[in-house]
This record gives sequence, structure tokens and C-alpha cells, in this order.
Amino acid sequence: MTADGAILDEITVDPGFAQGTAHALDVIADTARKLGATTALGVGVPGLLRRADGHVIHSPNIQGFRDLPLRAELARRMGFALESVIVENDANAAAVGEQWLGGGRGFGDFLLLTLGTGIGGGLILNGKLYAGEGMAGEAGHIVVDPNGPPCGCGGRGCVEVLASATAAKRRAIAAGLPQSAPGDLKQLSERARAGFEPEKKLLFDIGCDLGRGIGPVINLLDLHVFVFGGGFSAALDTLESGVRAGAEERSYLARGSKLKFVRAQLGPSAGWIGAARPTVPGQG
Amino acid sequence: MTADGAILDEITVDPGFAQGTAHALDVIADTARKLGATTALGVGVPGLLRRADGHVIHSPNIQGFRDLPLRAELARRMGFALESVIVENDANAAAVGEQWLGGGRGFGDFLLLTLGTGIGGGLILNGKLYAGEGMAGEAGHIVVDPNGPPCGCGGRGCVEVLASATAAKRRAIAAGLPQSAPGDLKQLSERARAGFEPEKKLLFDIGCDLGRGIGPVINLLDLHVFVFGGGFSAALDTLESGVRAGAEERSYLARGSKLKFVRAQLGPSAGWIGAARPTVPGQG
Repeated sequence: MTADGAILDEITVDPGFAQGTAHALDVIADTARKLGATTALGVGVPGLLRRADGHVIHSPNIQGFRDLPLRAELARRMGFALESVIVENDANAAAVGEQWLGGGRGFGDFLLLTLGTGIGGGLILNGKLYAGEGMAGEAGHIVVDPNGPPCGCGGRGCVEVLASATAAKRRAIAAGLPQSAPGDLKQLSERARAGFEPEKKLLFDIGCDLGRGIGPVINLLDLHVFVFGGGFSAALDTLESGVRAGAEERSYLARGSKLKFVRAQLGPSAGWIGAARPTVPGQG
Repeated sequence: MTADGAILDEITVDPGFAQGTAHALDVIADTARKLGATTALGVGVPGLLRRADGHVIHSPNIQGFRDLPLRAELARRMGFALESVIVENDANAAAVGEQWLGGGRGFGDFLLLTLGTGIGGGLILNGKLYAGEGMAGEAGHIVVDPNGPPCGCGGRGCVEVLASATAAKRRAIAAGLPQSAPGDLKQLSERARAGFEPEKKLLFDIGCDLGRGIGPVINLLDLHVFVFGGGFSAALDTLESGVRAGAEERSYLARGSKLKFVRAQLGPSAGWIGAARPTVPGQG
């Protein structure tokens, strides 16, 4: 990408994590070189990071990414100075991407929530990413129902375990809703749009749980704009009234306020686009 | 106050709100003049504000402060330019005060929670107050127990209705704990310190609810430092293990992290000290 947001080239590769972390890092660096990265490299990583030095503490989905000085490893392979390599959490990077070129354009303060296998989050405050020491934005693990189902994080009733794509599939199956394939979310929202009551109700309920999850965010940050990404965000129109109801139930600032729910626009590219943004904080 | 934080003089007056808002504003302006305010005036107000123009939308405790252009009214009375009058929510102003001269010194990111009649909050991020459009920091209304007691805000089980000074008194009385006066919080914490089990348990439980309230804050902002003010914060030593347990229950980022719980140092003066800070954002 150029500094003003033009995408020069795009490629998808499997770094081959199974062949070891050193191999995967070689593939990533080779790919970046092939794409013509001569001045800087931005990387979005699913996992918990220490931003100060681009160190991956732990990635739940990439086994070898544990206690890994990713920034230093990539800078060495690229022959770049440390400050020319940006390592950012993928949901945080996606928030930056959406703000730069996607659904968050024009909003100085918003939370991006990615509704996928889990629920990721990235927070833009005062026009800039707010990442804390690297892990801010983890809104997916805000507890909505203390007596709810156990979550992978060790807690119970997190918004992720109630309103992610995975959770929606599980809830559709548990509700015995008719579908061509188990947990077909596209069909679920299509049937809701067509007026089928059980599907409408389920999506309202899931939206409610999502809204309950953002209630604390509204009270804490006086936030009005929420950008939804990830595959399940395609159902936002069928979730929205539930989201509003849940948010109003759990936030007194939300009541009567002009909440804005916006679709993300960059799809899975949001992360690398955001990581490539030259002004991303934490750059050095 | 001087710009570098020296307190020149201090006075407590009753503005006589019962005699009308115009009268109360006259008294406030007269008092500021008497104190020698010749260049700028900072005001902390309990209530919901629109910061952009220092407009009070609603104050639960001052009837006449409703839809009131407070900044303009005071600037006119003082003969000041608009930008020389700062109007800030009192808990937000207290957070600025504690950061400037109190328990928050040296911390760039923290949440101040005032444990009093209710629970107020003020958020310092990247070294500056984060107030959103004026109402951020309202952590007192984060819902801890969706089936909990009704809260004055219209919600249920807010941290305020479970862990404020008022709530602690109510819970001590409900638990039938022996005390010289109904809901004597000082005696409650003294007995906990002396090793009485029922008092220890109650304060642990209240601390837990407080910690459950800050769990979402930790997940969302990767925050490590919490400053506790208000009268009930005197019991922080007896609440702390509960706060930690509750935070760890409700935040996966809190687990194993180095949370810091700090006492505020400026007491009820924190608000006017913070409002007087020349660098308070929203100043112009």
C-alpha cells in the first residue's frame, strides 16, 4: 500500500506454521519482498501482544507464536530498522483499517466488533487506536450473563459465547430452526428478513446479548458509534433492534441517545490495510 | 490555584440553590471574585454535560441545573471570554485533580472511582481526561448482576447499587451486623481489620462486586491502575482482595496481571483542584 491508501498489490499465502515458526517468518518476509515492501512492514496478529516492542505474548490460533519477538524477527529478515515494522493485534489493526478506508471513516470515536468464530474488538478514540499496552479492545470477553455458558477464556457468559457467529450457529441448532445446513447463518437471516418469527426472535435475542455487551462500553466511554465486521455482521440489519434494546437495558447513557450501528466495509482485508497505515500508533 | 498547582486560598460556600439558579450563579461568581480569580474559572458539576459548550443537560442533585448554558452564564458574570471558563463533570474533574496532585500522579492511564452515595468515575487515558462528549467515565452504572437490585438509573444490579457507600450500609444492615450506628462503615471496616469473619466476608463480597464492575473496563482498555476516592475508599484495604477476585472473574486480561489499586489523596477537594488545572481538555 502507498502512504495515501492506494492498494498496489494483494496476495494470500499460507505461511506454513506447521513447518515451524522460523519457516513461517521466512515465508512472510519473502512474500513482503515479493510484494515490493521496501520501506516498512505492518503485521496484524491474532493474539495478545506487548506493543512497546512488538512482542507476541500468546496467540490462541498460532501455536508457535508464544513469547515471540515478532517485530525484531521480521525486521531482521527484512533488513529494516525496528521502527519500520509495526506489529498490531489483528482486531486493532482492522479498526485502524476501517477508520482509514472503510466503515469507520469520519468517526473519531468508535468500537469495531468483528463477529466471527469469536468476537474481536478494536477501539478508536480521539481519532487514534487506543490499545493500552497492547490488549485493549477485547470487548468480546465482557460478561453479559454471569450464569451463561462457559467461554473459551475461562469466564462465563461473555458476549463472544452468546453472540459470535459460532454462538449464533449453536443457538440456531439448539432452537431447532429449519435449515439446509446446520447453523447456516445466511439462511437464518434471510428467513428473518422474510418474516419467519422464530428466526426473527432468535436474531433479536442474539442482538440483545450483543447490545448488553456494549452497554458497559457506552457508559464508560460515552461512545455512540459501533462498527460491525466479521462474517456474521452481514446479519446486522436483523440484529440491530436487539442490539439497541440490549444496549439500552445495560447503559443509562444509551437511553434516548443516537447510537449508530455501521457495517464494516473492508472484510478480511481490514487487518492488513490497518497494519499498513503509516500513522498507526506504536510505530516507534 | 496557580498554574503550577499551588493552592492560594480555599473557601466553602452554599450557593443557595433554593433561591434560584440565577442567585446561585451570582454567589458562585462573587465567591470566585473574592478568591481573586482574575484570569480563568474551572467548575466541577455533578451531572451530565455537553462539554463542547459547557452546557449542563441535567444534574440529579441540583434541580435548577437542567438545560443550562453554565459556561456562558458564568463567563458573562465574570467578564471572562468563554474559553476562560471550564465546566467539567465533577468525577471527571476529580480524576484530573488526582492525576495532577493526588493518588494518580505518575499514571498515564487509570480510572478514578469515587465510592460515595453513588459511584462516580473519571477516566484518564494517554495522560489526559477522556470524557467523550461529556459523559464518559460513568462506570458506576456498569451492570454487575442483571438480576440484582434496581438502581436509581433505571437499570438493575449496577456496581453503584452493590458497592457504593450507600449500598455497603444497606448490605451491612441486611446482614444484621452489630454496629453502634446503623450502617457505620468505619466500624464495619475496623471490625474486618480486627478479624471478625462476618465483616470480613461482607467487605470481600462488596469488593467482589466492585471488581466485577471493573472487569469490563480492564478487557476494554487494558487498564491496570484504579484509583479509589470517596468516603468508602477508606475501606480499600479491606475491599481489595475482593476487588481483585471480582476483576479476575470478569476479565481475562486481569488474570495474572499486575492490577494496582490506589487510594485517592485529595478527598472532596479533588474536583475543584482538577477543574482548576489549566491543561484540562475541553478548555477551548
